[in-house]
This record gives sequence, C-alpha cells and structure tokens, in this order.
Amino acid sequence: MKKNLEKLFNPQNIAIVGASEKEGSVGNTITRNLLDLGYQGEIFLINPKHDELLGKKCYKELNEIETEIDLAIMVIPAAFVNDAIKKSERAKNFIVISAGFSEIGDEGKKREEELKKVAEEKEINILGPNCLGMIIPNLKLNASFAAGMPEDGSVALISQSGALIVAMLDMAKKEQIKFSQIFSVGNKMQIDEVDLMEYLASDEKTKVIALYLEGIKDGQKFIQAAQKISKPIIVLKAGRSEKSQKAIASHTGSLAGSDEIINAAFEKAGVIRAENLEDFFILIKIVSNYKKFINNECVIVTNAGGPGVLATDAFKDKNIKLKDFSNETKAKLREFLPAESSVENPIDVLGDADEERYQKTLEVLESEDAENIICIMTAQGQTPVGKIGQLIADWSVKSAKNIIPVFIGGEKIEEAVEILKKNNIANFEFPKELIDALDEISVCQSAGEIAEEKKSFLKKIFGGKKNEIIKKAIEKNRKALLFGEAGELMKSYSVPVVDFKNIVANESAEKLAIDFPVVLKVDSENVLHKTDKGGLILGIKNQEELEEKIIEMQKEFPGENLIVQPMVKFETELILGLKRDGSFGPVVVFGLGGIYTEVFKMVDFLILPVSREEIKNKIMKSKINFLFKETRGKVIGDIDEFIEVLFNFSRLVMDNEEIKEIDINPLLITKDGGFEAVDVKIIL
Amino acid sequence: MKKNLEKLFNPQNIAIVGASEKEGSVGNTITRNLLDLGYQGEIFLINPKHDELLGKKCYKELNEIETEIDLAIMVIPAAFVNDAIKKSERAKNFIVISAGFSEIGDEGKKREEELKKVAEEKEINILGPNCLGMIIPNLKLNASFAAGMPEDGSVALISQSGALIVAMLDMAKKEQIKFSQIFSVGNKMQIDEVDLMEYLASDEKTKVIALYLEGIKDGQKFIQAAQKISKPIIVLKAGRSEKSQKAIASHTGSLAGSDEIINAAFEKAGVIRAENLEDFFILIKIVSNYKKFINNECVIVTNAGGPGVLATDAFKDKNIKLKDFSNETKAKLREFLPAESSVENPIDVLGDADEERYQKTLEVLESEDAENIICIMTAQGQTPVGKIGQLIADWSVKSAKNIIPVFIGGEKIEEAVEILKKNNIANFEFPKELIDALDEISVCQSAGEIAEEKKSFLKKIFGGKKNEIIKKAIEKNRKALLFGEAGELMKSYSVPVVDFKNIVANESAEKLAIDFPVVLKVDSENVLHKTDKGGLILGIKNQEELEEKIIEMQKEFPGENLIVQPMVKFETELILGLKRDGSFGPVVVFGLGGIYTEVFKMVDFLILPVSREEIKNKIMKSKINFLFKETRGKVIGDIDEFIEVLFNFSRLVMDNEEIKEIDINPLLITKDGGFEAVDVKIIL
Repeated sequence: MKKNLEKLFNPQNIAIVGASEKEGSVGNTITRNLLDLGYQGEIFLINPKHDELLGKKCYKELNEIETEIDLAIMVIPAAFVNDAIKKSERAKNFIVISAGFSEIGDEGKKREEELKKVAEEKEINILGPNCLGMIIPNLKLNASFAAGMPEDGSVALISQSGALIVAMLDMAKKEQIKFSQIFSVGNKMQIDEVDLMEYLASDEKTKVIALYLEGIKDGQKFIQAAQKISKPIIVLKAGRSEKSQKAIASHTGSLAGSDEIINAAFEKAGVIRAENLEDFFILIKIVSNYKKFINNECVIVTNAGGPGVLATDAFKDKNIKLKDFSNETKAKLREFLPAESSVENPIDVLGDADEERYQKTLEVLESEDAENIICIMTAQGQTPVGKIGQLIADWSVKSAKNIIPVFIGGEKIEEAVEILKKNNIANFEFPKELIDALDEISVCQSAGEIAEEKKSFLKKIFGGKKNEIIKKAIEKNRKALLFGEAGELMKSYSVPVVDFKNIVANESAEKLAIDFPVVLKVDSENVLHKTDKGGLILGIKNQEELEEKIIEMQKEFPGENLIVQPMVKFETELILGLKRDGSFGPVVVFGLGGIYTEVFKMVDFLILPVSREEIKNKIMKSKINFLFKETRGKVIGDIDEFIEVLFNFSRLVMDNEEIKEIDINPLLITKDGGFEAVDVKIIL
Repeated sequence: MKKNLEKLFNPQNIAIVGASEKEGSVGNTITRNLLDLGYQGEIFLINPKHDELLGKKCYKELNEIETEIDLAIMVIPAAFVNDAIKKSERAKNFIVISAGFSEIGDEGKKREEELKKVAEEKEINILGPNCLGMIIPNLKLNASFAAGMPEDGSVALISQSGALIVAMLDMAKKEQIKFSQIFSVGNKMQIDEVDLMEYLASDEKTKVIALYLEGIKDGQKFIQAAQKISKPIIVLKAGRSEKSQKAIASHTGSLAGSDEIINAAFEKAGVIRAENLEDFFILIKIVSNYKKFINNECVIVTNAGGPGVLATDAFKDKNIKLKDFSNETKAKLREFLPAESSVENPIDVLGDADEERYQKTLEVLESEDAENIICIMTAQGQTPVGKIGQLIADWSVKSAKNIIPVFIGGEKIEEAVEILKKNNIANFEFPKELIDALDEISVCQSAGEIAEEKKSFLKKIFGGKKNEIIKKAIEKNRKALLFGEAGELMKSYSVPVVDFKNIVANESAEKLAIDFPVVLKVDSENVLHKTDKGGLILGIKNQEELEEKIIEMQKEFPGENLIVQPMVKFETELILGLKRDGSFGPVVVFGLGGIYTEVFKMVDFLILPVSREEIKNKIMKSKINFLFKETRGKVIGDIDEFIEVLFNFSRLVMDNEEIKEIDINPLLITKDGGFEAVDVKIIL
C-alpha cells in the first residue's frame, strides 16, 4: 500500500526533539541546519532542560506544542525515543536520527520491534531509525546532520549509508550534480526505498532517482514499483562478494549467486545498475543532463588522434555503436576539414582545430541520425579552449542531439570546464568511462520497454492448485521427491520428461513397452550416487537382458523402486532449475548443462512471474541464444518449444511453493530440436 | 642491436633547423621552449632567411656551425628535410618534427624510405619523423612544441600520439605524476619504442616506463627487450577493435584476435597492460609512488561504511585479497576502537574518527603482513580532514607498508589532498579503480617472475630441419596439406594423431589391420565439406562392410585418397592450432573444442618460443585448467602428456615457417587422459 508521505516531505512546521546548543553535537547540527539555511516553515525546539535555546523558546515535550506537528525529528538517545513517540499526540511524521536500534544487536532489535508496533498502532510514518535525515534543497530544508545546502536540482538520492551521502554531497559540486531530495533510510524499519521511490515517482522536481542500497528487503515489491515508474532509476547495489554463502546442494543453487539474481531482477525492473561509485556518478551525470537515448548511435569528434583511438576501443563488444556516416555527410565534412582530417567516425578535426571547425562539424552532424555526439578536446598549442567550451555550451541548447563534452587535461582545459559548469553542463574526464555508462543505459532502455509491454500479461496467469504428490511427501516429512514422482509432477505441467517406466519394488518388467536400448536405474532417496554403487546400467539392448538386470538390481537394492527409460539421442545438454531467493522469490535458472555446467556458467535467470513474451526476449538475449539461431545451416533448438518448457516450468514453480530447489540436469535438446528432461531432482 | 643514444638524449648543444620568430609557429614554439625554460647547453638557430633571430646569431645551414652538433632538430617542411640531413657534416643525432612522411600516403612513404637510407648510410640516429619531440625535465630541455616544463620525476613516457602527450602533461599536474623523460616516437622510422625502452633501462632517473602504443612493429623484439628490463613497464595499447579483420578460414584464426595475442604477449613480457586512459594514470601513480608488491594482501581502513562495502566488492574475483586478521590484531584493535567499530577487514573506524584513531589503527597494522593499507576517508561532520591528511603523509614515510589514501569527496577534503600533494603522495578518488589497478600489477608481477626464470631455457631449444612433405606441397603450389600428409608430419614431431590408414586412390582395403568400428573419409583438397557430400561414413563395423564402402566411395570420388581411422572413445574435445601474427610471430592457440568452440571461446595463447615450464604455468592458469585438476574424484587430462603435446607442436611450428595456419579440431582427450588428434588442417 502506498504511504501518504506528503507532510513528512513537505512539512509546514518541524519539531526538533533533542535540540541542543552543544556545538558539534548532532542535536545542535540539525537545529542549526534547520534554523540557518533558509527553511520557511515554523520550527519548534524541544529539550526538557531549557526554557530558551539559541534565542528561541524551548518546549519540554512534544505535547506542549498546541498545533499539529507535520514533522518531528528525534535526536534523543535511543532509550527515550519509543516513549516520546508513543506519548506524542499531535505529530504524525517522524525522522528518527538516533542510533541504537537493530544495528546494535538483540537489545536494539527489541527496541526497533517495539517502535514498529507503536508506529502501526498510532498510524504514523517513521523514517529511520539510525539515519542521517533528509535534505530538500527546493525547500531549503536540511533535516540532517550533514552540513550545508546543496544546489537545487533534479536528482533524488536515496541512500542506505549516511556517510556516502556526505561524501556524495561533497563530490556532487565538482561533478555538476544537483539534488531535488536526499533521503537517508537508515534501518528501513518502516519507510523503505520502495516507499520513497513511489513518492518520488510523482514528485515534480525529481527527474532521476538514484539509490545506494546494501540490501533489498522485498525484491518483488521493488521490481513491481520500479516497473511502474517512468523516471530513470539508477542503483548502486553494494555487497557483491558474499563471503559466507552456505553450502549449496544443487547445481542450480551454486550457479545462481545473489549478485547474478540482482542483475536479472534489475533488468526485469528496467533499472540501471551502476558498477561502482565512479560509474554511479557518471550515470547520474548523463541521465540528469541528457534525455534522448533511443537509437544508441554515437559519433566521436576529436582534436587528438590518440584519445580518438582510445574512445573507439571503448566501443568493443558494446550495445551502443559508432555510426557509419553516409557519403553525403562525408562529402560535407570534406568541404571544410583539412585534407589530413579523418571524415570517418571518429572524426579527427586535427590538433589545430578552432571553435569554428568544431561548429561546422557539429552542424553537419545534425542531419545524421546518431544521437550522442562525443566531443573530445585536448589543449594543443593553439587550441582556443574557452571558445570551444562556449561553443559546446551554446550548441547543446540548439542541437537536437546529446552533445557530450570529454575535455581531457588539467589546468589548460579549466577555462572550458568552467564555462560548461556555468551552463550546467558536466564534463567527462575520460572517454572509456562515459562510453561504458552510455552502454549500460542503452541496455537498460531496451529492458525498460519490455517491462512496460509486459505488465498486462502478468495479471494472474498463474493458478494455485495444490499437488497431491508433494502433499504426501511433505506429510511423510520427506526432503526430496523420487525421480518417478518428480517426473509425474513435471508431466502434469507439460514439462517434457523422458518416457520413463516406474518399476515399484519387487515388480517384474514383463509388461513394459519401451524402445531399446534403455537405461535402468535405482530411484531412491537413500542412493545418492547411483553410478558409484551399481545403481545405473546403460545400454540394455533387449527385453531379455532388461528382465535379467532388473532382478539383479532388485537384489542389490531391496525394496527400492527402479526406473527404465530409453537412451535418448541428443544434440546438446541443458540445465534447468529453480532457486528461491530471500528477496526476489522464485528464480528460474537455465543454461548449458553437461559435465562442465559449473565451469562454463553459461546460465541466465528468470525472475518470476514471466509472460511468454518476456521468456522469448530473455532467451534471445541469453548466453545460449546461439542454440536458437542458424549456424552452418542448422538450428539446434526449437525456440517455441523452449518457451513452452520455461513457461510451464514457471507455472509448476509458482503453484508449488513447497518446492525449495529443482535441478533438471540434463534437459536434452533432441535431434529434432525438442526437449526432454532426463534427470530431475526436486528438493522440498 | 642496441643503439647509442646518449648524445641524442643528453646533448651538450642543440641546433634548431627552422628556428622562427613567427609566433604560434612550431619553429618558434620549439625555439622559445629551448631558449626560455632553463636548458644549459649551447643553442644554434638555423634559418637561411635571417642573420639574427630572437636576439641571437642565426646560421644559414648546419654546416656553418663549426663544432660537432650533438642534436639537430628539424622543423622545416618535409620536402627539405632529407637533403638538409644528407648534407650535414657534423650532426649525428636528429629529431625530425616535420610531418609529411609515411603518414600522408605514397609520396610521403617514398620520402621516408629515402630518409631511412640516408640515416643508415651516415650512421646517424633519427627520432621521428612526424613527432612532437622530446622533453627531459632534469636537463630543463624541452625540444618539443608542447608548452611548459613538467616537474622533474621518475616516470618515462613514450607515446605514439603527440596529442596524448600534451593532454597527459596537463593532467599529470593534478594527478601528481612527474616525468624523467617524455618521447614522442612519431612514425618510428628508425628509433622505436624498443630502442627507447632499452635506453631507459639504464637511465638512473627513470623508475617506471610508461608507453602509449597504437602498433608494435616487431613483437618478438618487444617481448625480449621487456623481459630484460627490471623496471616496471606499463603499456596503454590502443586499437582493440579492429573493424577490418580479413575473412579467416580456420577456427584458430577467428579465435586469436590481435587483442588477445597482445594480452598473451604482454603477460609473457611481464608488462602491465592498462585497460584505458584512466587506468593508465592510476597504474602510473601506483607504480611510481609505491614499491612493494609481493604478497598482494590488502587492508581497508575506512571512516564510512558504504565506501567500505564498495571497496570490499571490488575484491570480487581478484588476485589480490583482503587480509584475514589474526586474533591478536583484532584484540589490539578492540582495545581502542569504539564498540560499534568493525575489527574485521575492512576496519570501520566510524564517522567520528580523528587522526589519532587512524594512527593507532595503522600502528597495529604494521605487524600484520598485508602490504597495501588502503585508507578511506570521507569528510563527516567533525572529521579533522587536514590532520588525517598529515597523518597519512607522515605515516607513509615511517611505515614499511604501502599506505594508499582514498579520500572521497570534493571541497571538504581538499585540505587533505593538498597536504598529500605537498608530500608527493597521490590521492585516489575512487576505491574500485585503485583496487583494479593493484590487481593488474599483482597479476603481472607473477608473470614477470616466470619471465625471469624462463630465459635460460629458451636458448635455441629449437632446431631447423626442413620437412619433405611441406617442401613437395609447396613445389606443387598447393595451399594446404591432405590429412594423410598432415598426420605424417605430426607423427614425425611426436604430436599424437589417431591411428589412421591412408588408402591411396584405387587401392583396396584388404591389407588393413585396424580396430573396428571405424570411420571412412575422403582426403582431398577438393572436397571441403565431407559430411555434406557423402565423404564421411561413421561406425563401419567390420572388414566386409569397410571394403564395400571403400569401393562405393572410390566411385563417388574418383582419384581421391581415402582415410580409415578408428572411432576414438573420448572424454573431451580440445582444439589446438597455430596462427601467425604480423607482429609477434607464431602463436599457439589451445582450448576447448567441439561444435561450440567459437561460442565458448575458452582458449589461451602461447607466444613462441616456449619452455616446458612456461607451458605448464600457462596450462595451469588457462581457461581449461579444470581439465587437469581433480573434480569429483577424477582428473580428465594428464598434464604431463599435454605439456609434451604443446611442446612438440611448438617445435613443429618453429621448424616449419612455411605453415601459415594449423587447426587440429578436435584434439581428443581419451578415456585414459591421453591425447589424440582426429582431424588436422594445415594451411601453407
């Protein structure tokens, strides 16, 4: 449910519980920030030890204030916070700056639980606890203990680290990033990143939402919220290197690390993932400065050969491309560029280029349908640095393109960088990092489109019938299904399984109708490694031999079921599996199988639910897409059939929440391009 | 042969041919740079139009100067350069700044050829043509048309792009990089990067050699020179994305792109490859500031949680590691760090940390054997930024560790960054980029050691006998060997080939002694796709069937040879091949084979020559190293046998220069871990 946070984020008055005159204290810093930086609403100071504070009246407690309080900021020790909020009668919104909650262990966890209950009972909103606060430059409102007031802009920053906000504010000035809102979410007890994203979705000042997250509590909620928001969302997700993943039983489990799942989830959500802190800044700079990312074609204009070559290198293996010019464009460029200039892309306007040569080049490029014009400038001997800076600034306004300056250097280019700054244009120091970021945006743009299209398909595609096989197994407290059971379950969802025959303990093989040669294997929870213990016999050629082997195996494994199945001729081995993620729920893993599955790690991930259309897109972008394209006159797998396999498998997964993990390994692609599961492990 | 470049790079006097008073001209800029920036040697100006220039005597031509000239700089139009040098009697060293040589096409190429001949005949040294010149800050010598005099330092820069030098000089100031020498190599007509590297190897001022290269003329010479130099060498090699690779016939050819070969070559040479321009700067900063890179263990000390987590993330999949602390260290840290601090790595000293808390932490870390101590600081409310900056500067001198500051922010951290600068310490803006660079260094360090060890093995391991099969084929102007011929060639070098029988046209099969089932295939240059045209029959079960099929196939392909070979049971398919690189010579390619060879691209490269020891190291670091390690109680391939295969294959390649490409696909790993080539294609 969407929370009503209007008053919290646009308060007409603010009470500071724990206002202080002690310099350097958090209570003092916040009070000063609110009093001194231009906030226009009324401010109430609360501190039981004072009648007057910093020249203002000081109240003993919240209830002494007789008007309704839009926002109360708590800066008192953790031990007193819950009580103070519980007793308050006229405050509906709180920011709890105080530390000493779930982040400090058991005692704090108890305190946070209690505070959460208070919030629910009183139907109030709480940001924090254990947070830096919030800053809203537009309102000159700094309700945090970070110093100063950033310039008013269009980037909303949500951060799970207060220290990172402080560092980013400091960097933002030189990087030309201006903020609409800054929220420190602290322990995310009640208001989390999703609530804030939903609020910001309709905030007029905000054009870009940037998040620093260390964890995502409810991944499905995050995806759904992100999909609905049309503003670009950039996330720097920390915590890639989990040292302590617990031991994992299945292939699927070991293939789907949490970082890979985050990637799949962000793709599904249409979110741009920043690779690191520098990339985060660059992405924010690009997305807040430029608006057109449609055809992903780029042009490089440079007055220096080396940097031009390096920029070209950065396009290797990228989604974005260097535009090939039309002959007309080349001819037009040739008209005024010196003979030694290159009129291919990158365009080398040479070391003696002045602003006029840059301008003429940009004019010609207006008629090319590339959208990103990357203008590299280095300060060669006679380069009119300032004039070229001014040209780029002016042309950015006139042009229909994204005019992106990459001025490389130090002191000598400073004049140009300053001119850009005055015109609210950010310079990019190095071509490679810019081009990487443009590419990340382009990849996400296409994902975003899909996300939009998809929504209507997703409404309750999936039913909810309980499965008898699973029910019985759980009643008997079993931890896994037999292959026979798993196979039946798969069949009931039209997931293709090899045509196996189940020989229940002591049964004979007489009645079987099956194509030879066949495989005979024991089907038991007690026999883990069938091969080692003689529980697997390959290549049985006829009925006589089969009957003989069945008797032998029944002697070896008394009371166990046996499985007879044909030896399937196949083209390729795949793996198909399920893993449940703590945050994002069911994740379907598919990719190349066989003995080297974990060496190759050629797998991709589907975050459920999925439509057939989303599955198709995913397959075509997957690491195994080559199996569904013509190579040397042949297509290995039938994509339509594979879509059905994945779709039906997803239905099975969605319907049966009791299943923890599934490993279908191998899922064979047969000679005719169809699919057949040969071994299935289902863990409950 | 090592050139004697002492006088060129340490001249007692300099003549400027083309000195000019026209402001903004190259001739004027160079003259001004030499006269005004403090160079102590004698300077002669030469310009036939003047008797006096810029207040100095002006000569008509070089020969008018009666003393020996250590260095003449040519800034006259290209058309006059060759003649002027030819006529000069007392100059032995030249820098030709003038453009208009091979870079402008055929006319220029001719001019350059002629100049090269002049240089050879007169036994003179020429840097350039078409270059920016050189700068030697130690001598206050700026013989280039880049403005100003960089600070004297220890980094030698060799660049194939003049514009990049200008930009780098400009950036270097803010990045704390100081140069010992800067050389612009231009067209590398005579003096190339290898000559300069060899000169710099014994230059006392130079501690680090940094190169920007777009091409490497003689790759083998480069490797050999780099291996001999004990100073760190950092190369930014541009030109990754060759658009125009010509169509390639073999798998091997398409797998071994030139960029992959460069990587293998740099590894062999013990050279650090910079990934991009930013990385180039960071690597230069690290290598010139810090000296100890031995155990690759790192510690992070941070006053901000978020940046600490992000820095930890950067260690994912890296060679360098975050050190696990001893219990003793943790106890010592616990003594003075606040309870909420983390005493694991990264150490969180908390947002209110002062310089004392940093210092105590660093003191404790002295006894841990991690060598890189990464000190992250953000300017939180009360952070004593300047004092912490001073502490890091002081501690860097006292400590046995690499104390590496990562101060994140803008204005608020400036005081600290300035203090570092004054102490000649570079700050790193972002943790990820620093950690990536440290990792690149560590990877190269280990490669470097191998390179050292290896040298003694390499002296003429390889012989030089000419092969009869190849000789005959070439005499007949054939472009490829038949499988039968290729197989014989392989056998003669002990490269294991399947036990095949060659049935010469019209011969019968009666005499064959071979294990059934067998494969029958046509062996012809005319039948490219055997499978399509019925030239391949699998699974022939006995002698009778074989004889029958031979007769059939001889009818189908009259006059062609046939091959009979057993169907080999195998574990895994590899590919083994040869490609000849224009710069680095023969490159052996090995990796995973089978139908998806080009999809997986799991291949590695050996630049020849190689010792068995180098081969072994390469295999163990290769993408297919898993085949030679125990997995699930089994080792797939015998590493000693594989070393012999690669070593013998390398001998074959080195001995037979007429072979252009080889594709062994597949090279099977048999059930007993041995190797057998099943199909071989040799292109002449």
